[in-house]
Amino acid sequence: MFNKILIANRGEIALRIIRTCKEMDILTVAVYSTADKDSLHVRFADEAVCIGPPSSTESYLSIPRIMAAVEITNADAVHPGYGFLAENADFAEVCQQYGIKFIGPTPDMIRKMGDKVTAKETMIKAGVPVVPGSDGLVKDVAHGQKIAADIGYPVIIKATAGGGGKGMRIVKSKDKFEEMWDSARREAKSSFGNDGIYVEKFIEEPRHIEFQIIGDQFGKVIHLSERDCTIQRRHQKLIEECPSPFMTPELREEMGIASIKAGSCINYEGVGTVEFLVDKHRKFYFMEMNTRIQVEHPVTEEVIDHDLIKEQIKVAAGEPLSGENHIPQLHAIECRINAEDPFNDFRPSPGKIQSFHSAKGHGVRVDTHVYAGYTVPPYYDSMIAKLICKAQTREECITKMRRALNEFIIEGIKTTIPFHKQLMENKKFIEGDFNTSFMDTFEIKEE
Amino acid sequence: MFNKILIANRGEIALRIIRTCKEMDILTVAVYSTADKDSLHVRFADEAVCIGPPSSTESYLSIPRIMAAVEITNADAVHPGYGFLAENADFAEVCQQYGIKFIGPTPDMIRKMGDKVTAKETMIKAGVPVVPGSDGLVKDVAHGQKIAADIGYPVIIKATAGGGGKGMRIVKSKDKFEEMWDSARREAKSSFGNDGIYVEKFIEEPRHIEFQIIGDQFGKVIHLSERDCTIQRRHQKLIEECPSPFMTPELREEMGIASIKAGSCINYEGVGTVEFLVDKHRKFYFMEMNTRIQVEHPVTEEVIDHDLIKEQIKVAAGEPLSGENHIPQLHAIECRINAEDPFNDFRPSPGKIQSFHSAKGHGVRVDTHVYAGYTVPPYYDSMIAKLICKAQTREECITKMRRALNEFIIEGIKTTIPFHKQLMENKKFIEGDFNTSFMDTFEIKEE
Repeated sequence: MFNKILIANRGEIALRIIRTCKEMDILTVAVYSTADKDSLHVRFADEAVCIGPPSSTESYLSIPRIMAAVEITNADAVHPGYGFLAENADFAEVCQQYGIKFIGPTPDMIRKMGDKVTAKETMIKAGVPVVPGSDGLVKDVAHGQKIAADIGYPVIIKATAGGGGKGMRIVKSKDKFEEMWDSARREAKSSFGNDGIYVEKFIEEPRHIEFQIIGDQFGKVIHLSERDCTIQRRHQKLIEECPSPFMTPELREEMGIASIKAGSCINYEGVGTVEFLVDKHRKFYFMEMNTRIQVEHPVTEEVIDHDLIKEQIKVAAGEPLSGENHIPQLHAIECRINAEDPFNDFRPSPGKIQSFHSAKGHGVRVDTHVYAGYTVPPYYDSMIAKLICKAQTREECITKMRRALNEFIIEGIKTTIPFHKQLMENKKFIEGDFNTSFMDTFEIKEE
Repeated sequence: MFNKILIANRGEIALRIIRTCKEMDILTVAVYSTADKDSLHVRFADEAVCIGPPSSTESYLSIPRIMAAVEITNADAVHPGYGFLAENADFAEVCQQYGIKFIGPTPDMIRKMGDKVTAKETMIKAGVPVVPGSDGLVKDVAHGQKIAADIGYPVIIKATAGGGGKGMRIVKSKDKFEEMWDSARREAKSSFGNDGIYVEKFIEEPRHIEFQIIGDQFGKVIHLSERDCTIQRRHQKLIEECPSPFMTPELREEMGIASIKAGSCINYEGVGTVEFLVDKHRKFYFMEMNTRIQVEHPVTEEVIDHDLIKEQIKVAAGEPLSGENHIPQLHAIECRINAEDPFNDFRPSPGKIQSFHSAKGHGVRVDTHVYAGYTVPPYYDSMIAKLICKAQTREECITKMRRALNEFIIEGIKTTIPFHKQLMENKKFIEGDFNTSFMDTFEIKEE
């Protein structure tokens, strides 16, 4: 087992990792920018090294500075957390070259999954369903119609230079294809000066459902069931839950098998997440694989009662996996509490926290690096806490989350707590009836 | 279901009950003495009524004042918590007379279990093992010897007027009986002027193991497995855990059956705890039954993932029990954090809390009514927080508890955190090798 782990990250995830290291009798090194000197991750680590000014590129993203901290503290492993260098294959490679264990997959695995085209090709080869479509540009309308017939309607026609919905057309049936094709091309031409077009299956009412996987160095890969992360705003997850209210035992079985295939085909080691889109017919399509621990990993931990960071460190140290695939028996939800003003387009709200009272009690967990008197710096991600609730059923879990949100007091800055309170009262959310467009029509009421 | 519950208690348990009520959409009324006006249970209740001065007899123990608070707030049920009026049959009766539901068993059940002699007789009739011995005084040495032969050695000879070990003799074999009998009588005569003697089975290396039971109004009683509360100081529990490290599946089966008998024989309704002594041969003896929620109920909640207060309120409202007996799959430990100085004979240490940082993270729960700036009053029980950890195994749970204790910061007053830290490093404790005398020889080292 490792003797000393340097955590190349900040905030709640750094503290989260420190906690597990303490429970494993592993020494910890925190690194921090000058903006983070008062963060709890600095206080609770065995050692802490200042690695630079607030700017991420000169601190948390600086490989030379982090490697210098590794060297002076004599750490034998690095945990990258999420974000920053967590999916940077070059960093993993530098660690390898210096004989420092990077707690995560190999540089090669990171590269394979980090490049979308390679990842998609790898998944197709492994038999994992991906969003079907033209491989590259479509020559002409007849070619487009053939592809559409092959993958089945509805399809989406997209301008290769597109963006913001321009040059994009959903085609529900064959007889509309030519009309939509012409109109998309015209729009693409006038908007971007480029009428290159490709065609893809249109995913109806998509949900974002991801599977937690973990692989060891002996080729064993298991899944720890799914997380539903459908509720997003501008591609930022707001809440996550396990199990997904949309899941059926059959679909879990199928998606579980696909997730393990996705991991096994690259001999994946470490914790990883296979993200899928699931359409209203419960057909699923591989989106991407994240080769690191996720922000939302605690919902899985709560339903399976295992410490994922501990499992991650154990497989990184060469221990074989002992568990099996896990089917959730409980329900857990995580609300990301951000220093943002939900009544003002979620504008970031850094500043000094005047009072802080964490929700507590049965089935309530709060992961945070902040406290009363702490100043949230403006330089990084605005997430300041994760509030995780678990209960026997989804209904009870929502009720518990309401109670916990009402009990959670943060004064001095704006937070997304009021948004989450409203979300927990939303009929569609309560019924589990939502897709990735949910936030487009969600209206936040002034309190 | 109830509309509004008045919580006739204070501190962490009042807050604990309020949390569950909020999750059940039940309104809550806190009562408080003037010493408790800043407690979180007052802040988080929907209504709060000051019921008197600091003295318990004029506040939390005053039935007229509590009933007045019930009347002015129009509560339809009272939750008594633990301590204070929780096992006061008269209070339960007054509630009944006023048509207010007392959340607990009937006055009759409380009385039956509150009187030791009646409780013992009831258990004998139900076939629950009790500590065997002379029923009352022993006439002479021959009579004593006959009883000893019947119940088996070792036995203990006790002066009826005894106390502090005076007039008490452990007899390991028949040939020593007469000598010990004479010496006990002489000592009793000279110490108390009363040489009345009785004889009981001597429980070797006893452990305190209790079973959580719950009964509904339809005669169904189940058990939720055991808690080991062996580590005590002057009959005050210091830590509790589930499962007991001393337990075997066979013993749990037997003790579970006995616990259900103990509840069923009085048609018990509500949550209750059947306390046993278990000797080194794993023979068990009924001690007493507590007809209320216990301080240590969270260890059971953590291993079974159910809210016991919710179950308690549901059966009180007349709902039938749906669960079955529960066998623990996880391990949980609770440390009672008291405002006491462990380096000074656990002398109470009330006063103002200058800083307070609660332990957090995966598998860690803290139930508390205090916070930074709160003044611990000198009038009540010194417990200020319960720190509960759970993990897959006892070993992991101890490791987690160490981590959590190290992270838990309370400044301004003395607490028992340093004691618990030392306990978690104690070899005998770690090995699960302890009995109720454990604290007699435990030496607290100055830090």
